[in-house]
Amino acid sequence: MGPGVDPSPPRDLGFGSLGTGRQGRLLQRDGRFTTKRVGLSPIESFGLYHYLLTTTWPRFLAWVAGTFVAVNAVFAILYVALGPDALHGGVATTLGGRISEAFFFSVHTLATIGYGNIVPASATANVLDALEALAGLLGVAIVAGIGFARVSRPVAGIKFSEVAVVAPYRGGSGLMFRVANVRRNELIQVKVDVSLSLLEANGARSFHPLDLERHDVVFMPTSWTVVHPINRTSPLFGLDGDALTARHPEIIVLLTAVEEVFSQVVHARFSYAGTEIRWGAKFRPILEYGDDDHVGRANVGRLSEIEPLQVISRGTEEG
Amino acid sequence: MGPGVDPSPPRDLGFGSLGTGRQGRLLQRDGRFTTKRVGLSPIESFGLYHYLLTTTWPRFLAWVAGTFVAVNAVFAILYVALGPDALHGGVATTLGGRISEAFFFSVHTLATIGYGNIVPASATANVLDALEALAGLLGVAIVAGIGFARVSRPVAGIKFSEVAVVAPYRGGSGLMFRVANVRRNELIQVKVDVSLSLLEANGARSFHPLDLERHDVVFMPTSWTVVHPINRTSPLFGLDGDALTARHPEIIVLLTAVEEVFSQVVHARFSYAGTEIRWGAKFRPILEYGDDDHVGRANVGRLSEIEPLQVISRGTEEG
Amino acid sequence: MGPGVDPSPPRDLGFGSLGTGRQGRLLQRDGRFTTKRVGLSPIESFGLYHYLLTTTWPRFLAWVAGTFVAVNAVFAILYVALGPDALHGGVATTLGGRISEAFFFSVHTLATIGYGNIVPASATANVLDALEALAGLLGVAIVAGIGFARVSRPVAGIKFSEVAVVAPYRGGSGLMFRVANVRRNELIQVKVDVSLSLLEANGARSFHPLDLERHDVVFMPTSWTVVHPINRTSPLFGLDGDALTARHPEIIVLLTAVEEVFSQVVHARFSYAGTEIRWGAKFRPILEYGDDDHVGRANVGRLSEIEPLQVISRGTEEG
Amino acid sequence: MGPGVDPSPPRDLGFGSLGTGRQGRLLQRDGRFTTKRVGLSPIESFGLYHYLLTTTWPRFLAWVAGTFVAVNAVFAILYVALGPDALHGGVATTLGGRISEAFFFSVHTLATIGYGNIVPASATANVLDALEALAGLLGVAIVAGIGFARVSRPVAGIKFSEVAVVAPYRGGSGLMFRVANVRRNELIQVKVDVSLSLLEANGARSFHPLDLERHDVVFMPTSWTVVHPINRTSPLFGLDGDALTARHPEIIVLLTAVEEVFSQVVHARFSYAGTEIRWGAKFRPILEYGDDDHVGRANVGRLSEIEPLQVISRGTEEG
Repeated sequence: MGPGVDPSPPRDLGFGSLGTGRQGRLLQRDGRFTTKRVGLSPIESFGLYHYLLTTTWPRFLAWVAGTFVAVNAVFAILYVALGPDALHGGVATTLGGRISEAFFFSVHTLATIGYGNIVPASATANVLDALEALAGLLGVAIVAGIGFARVSRPVAGIKFSEVAVVAPYRGGSGLMFRVANVRRNELIQVKVDVSLSLLEANGARSFHPLDLERHDVVFMPTSWTVVHPINRTSPLFGLDGDALTARHPEIIVLLTAVEEVFSQVVHARFSYAGTEIRWGAKFRPILEYGDDDHVGRANVGRLSEIEPLQVISRGTEEG
Repeated sequence: MGPGVDPSPPRDLGFGSLGTGRQGRLLQRDGRFTTKRVGLSPIESFGLYHYLLTTTWPRFLAWVAGTFVAVNAVFAILYVALGPDALHGGVATTLGGRISEAFFFSVHTLATIGYGNIVPASATANVLDALEALAGLLGVAIVAGIGFARVSRPVAGIKFSEVAVVAPYRGGSGLMFRVANVRRNELIQVKVDVSLSLLEANGARSFHPLDLERHDVVFMPTSWTVVHPINRTSPLFGLDGDALTARHPEIIVLLTAVEEVFSQVVHARFSYAGTEIRWGAKFRPILEYGDDDHVGRANVGRLSEIEPLQVISRGTEEG
Repeated sequence: MGPGVDPSPPRDLGFGSLGTGRQGRLLQRDGRFTTKRVGLSPIESFGLYHYLLTTTWPRFLAWVAGTFVAVNAVFAILYVALGPDALHGGVATTLGGRISEAFFFSVHTLATIGYGNIVPASATANVLDALEALAGLLGVAIVAGIGFARVSRPVAGIKFSEVAVVAPYRGGSGLMFRVANVRRNELIQVKVDVSLSLLEANGARSFHPLDLERHDVVFMPTSWTVVHPINRTSPLFGLDGDALTARHPEIIVLLTAVEEVFSQVVHARFSYAGTEIRWGAKFRPILEYGDDDHVGRANVGRLSEIEPLQVISRGTEEG
Repeated sequence: MGPGVDPSPPRDLGFGSLGTGRQGRLLQRDGRFTTKRVGLSPIESFGLYHYLLTTTWPRFLAWVAGTFVAVNAVFAILYVALGPDALHGGVATTLGGRISEAFFFSVHTLATIGYGNIVPASATANVLDALEALAGLLGVAIVAGIGFARVSRPVAGIKFSEVAVVAPYRGGSGLMFRVANVRRNELIQVKVDVSLSLLEANGARSFHPLDLERHDVVFMPTSWTVVHPINRTSPLFGLDGDALTARHPEIIVLLTAVEEVFSQVVHARFSYAGTEIRWGAKFRPILEYGDDDHVGRANVGRLSEIEPLQVISRGTEEG
């Protein structure tokens, strides 16, 4: 996926006939595909594991807490169902009180605390209690496992500018967007691959690689303005905003980089629809200098800040 | 392993003389080799670790539960063998009752619950108890470790169509099969390498790389129909189903892709024997559109659905 | 990033306009960038996770211990706030004594010890206790997860010599620095990429790849002296120490290698400012032989030892 | 590191001047370098972490058990040193008995069992107890972390034949050795790189890449016989066993492969000294067929089995 030497032949990104006759976008703004896969087997479609791995931490913790409560409730009911001789040491006399007592006994068992003020007494209660002990051990192991898998997933705080702009570039114009790392870890060997999808007259979608000023950078200490020069070989050459929008364009960006903390390759996708391309605008600098001008600060919060320009040509012969 | 420029020279996939004189297949349908390795050292051949990593979750959990019960049973017998003064606080009078009591005491110790209604009293019982405490800690650590290793293994739900077809393709014909991702995670940078193995007149097996319409796709949001054009350079050129079957063919597929959740490369193998190649059939589309035609649904449950065709040529000059 | 065939065109390492007009260095000596990113979202900027992953072990353990104490203190205050009936079994009569008792009870609960001499008695205390049990389980899981992530991070003890030297090399001279692995694990397939940054007359910083005698080695059992021959194609050709220093040079080194224990790629950055380049000096050998001359010992503690030389030419025509 | 187009120029594997004047080997038979690195900083040289990661399981478990006993012994002495009021519930009267009691109390605390028959009573004992609780939690986390890191390390059971042979090959002769996977997991994309090191007349060691019949195989279901054809371009051409031995040869093998369970790249090194090269011998087949000749069994226990040959030429013109 290096620079497209000859950008004229359409290529296939793997979307197949997905785009045929469709004006909607192929990628959501968060990089997920708009298409869904169905017909998965029940286990595969449930996707609990995938959900627990990729959801937010608050939701993950809430899910764990909810499961903890539910499991203890089930065990509490079972202990009570085993009769008054199941547990020894309780003082409750009502059903509600006994369930409550059994619930907290279950908590002390599942969490392997075991105060011992209440203990299993009957044979069946002991068997149930042993089951719960095993469940507690497995539960800790599984939660720790998934928790770690979450922690060690290579994630990158890659942020793309909300819009792309068409701005003057080297005597002509260029399509530009910005990308920055909004986390504290460093990314190195950052590469992007940009494609333009257009709706053709016959209803099919064509895909054109966009040649870039630079396809990769070694470091990305601040932000990177990715530039596609709109020269004679560009599929954007000779188009203006209206003409482009009429073809329901989608600029599809694939980024890979090496995240330094875990030394793993991370991927990010993004796409710009026609309405997200600003013609005749440029990005504001994000580099700020304080009193000590030897240390710059890159304000990535300003990644999407643009300002309008007066005039913009429709591309020039530079290639 | 790029596109074979000159497919005529046989190549070696690493099977060596395995196929010599054999009509059976080299790969099972699940991608495992039909050949077994023996003579491994006892530890290596036992393969418990490999089993625990790769077996299903129910079997893994059953194995853990079984070990938990067995370890507690052994400790229970040891506690009872240490005599009536070993444990303090029990009420059982029969041997069975004492073993049962010791078993549940062991559970409370191994699981680090420690209710305290029964406690080790003699010096030897305390030593045994300390051993069990250590075993419990190590057990949790090991189960958590293997559990996590299972969770973080890069696995891909890659499914191949049950059969390959020979269908019309660009004025000639092509060998085609389909592949889809049946899990919720995305695969990117999917590559396939396809080889044809034939039994030669001298009893040896030859291996021919099959040139493909496309060897890789960037994304695979739905499914991918892999196509080998049967043109003049194809080893299938001029053959029909019967002629091919007579040579005991095996089409060997190696797929690699990047799984996005863990950003790791995953591998899959598959093979089609002669009887799994349908001549004069084509795959049914798996893309379905609902009322809202902007969002397609790829029904991967229909991955292997084919329908017969009327006429199929035996390959044409296109290369 | 192979050998620069034509080193004359400046290239961009991704620093953008960062260096414009600046005499300070771009990389700190520990490989971190001198530029900071600001404007991160609160969660992203907090960076606790990144901190816990990358800080030293003593600080990590201190942070865990401090959190442990703080969480128990909060729970202790809450237990006391629930009134004298919350906990059962305590003997303290003063407020301080009750807080202390509640604190240690909390420790026994959070750590899932549960001696049982003090137990939660009221309904609200039981709920709080259950919350603490869950917090304890999650805490262990999270600490274990981060602890493991720390353990399994691919880290390499790559050390660069404190200074670079310009020493005689093959009839001319060469810029040299040394790199060694100061840990017990082995590094293989070690590659370096070296660039020279110069402050140009117009205030901008230019970047020049430096061609090397060798860009990679398969093994690095001792140390590796990286050599840039100062021949006619070198941007250093014809310069002496003063002339180079006047241009505020920075030699930027990027190293990648495969660490064998985890088979992962590791990265290291380093930079030499003008004052860290010694003209007319050479590195002392670090290889030592004992009585048995068949086994050498590489003393990496002497990695930065240099000795002055008499005369050094300003580069010769060798390229 | 592909096939050496021109094998004549010596190359540098990174051994530098290590081999100068030495007749001993550079690699031990287990693939470790014979050279040691010294001068590491105390922490780096201690290498406990590296040891715990790479030692055998029995030693790892023994180390954990020993630490467990030692930590409990230290805490036991501290509890006793705090005086008779530190712990409550003990019955021992002698110093030995009190130390023993404190030791087992410590075990129940560190392992978070907490029976509760003995509890900390004094303020200082409670603080010590809280410290031990924290130590227990961290201990479990650290052991689980290292245990998992051990489990998830990509290890391959790659075994090389004990000797290399020079055997007839395509009308001439070839240097051959065998390699097999002795574990149950599969290796794919196996690549080898072979170099010959010779002691030159001037005392230096030269390194020559050896061209191979095949540098990689896609699969390795049985074993792989790596062959270096001794043709006119081979540095072995025209040599016999005595002439080669006189030059203190060392054949250095570097293997990389993808291990399928974790999809990670694994590395293996091996070397053959002059005395480990058998001239005029060939490897016995390891493939065995039972009654059902459709399933071969590769007996990797026979990997090093060779048998003598009558006559062996000194190489022929084939290149």
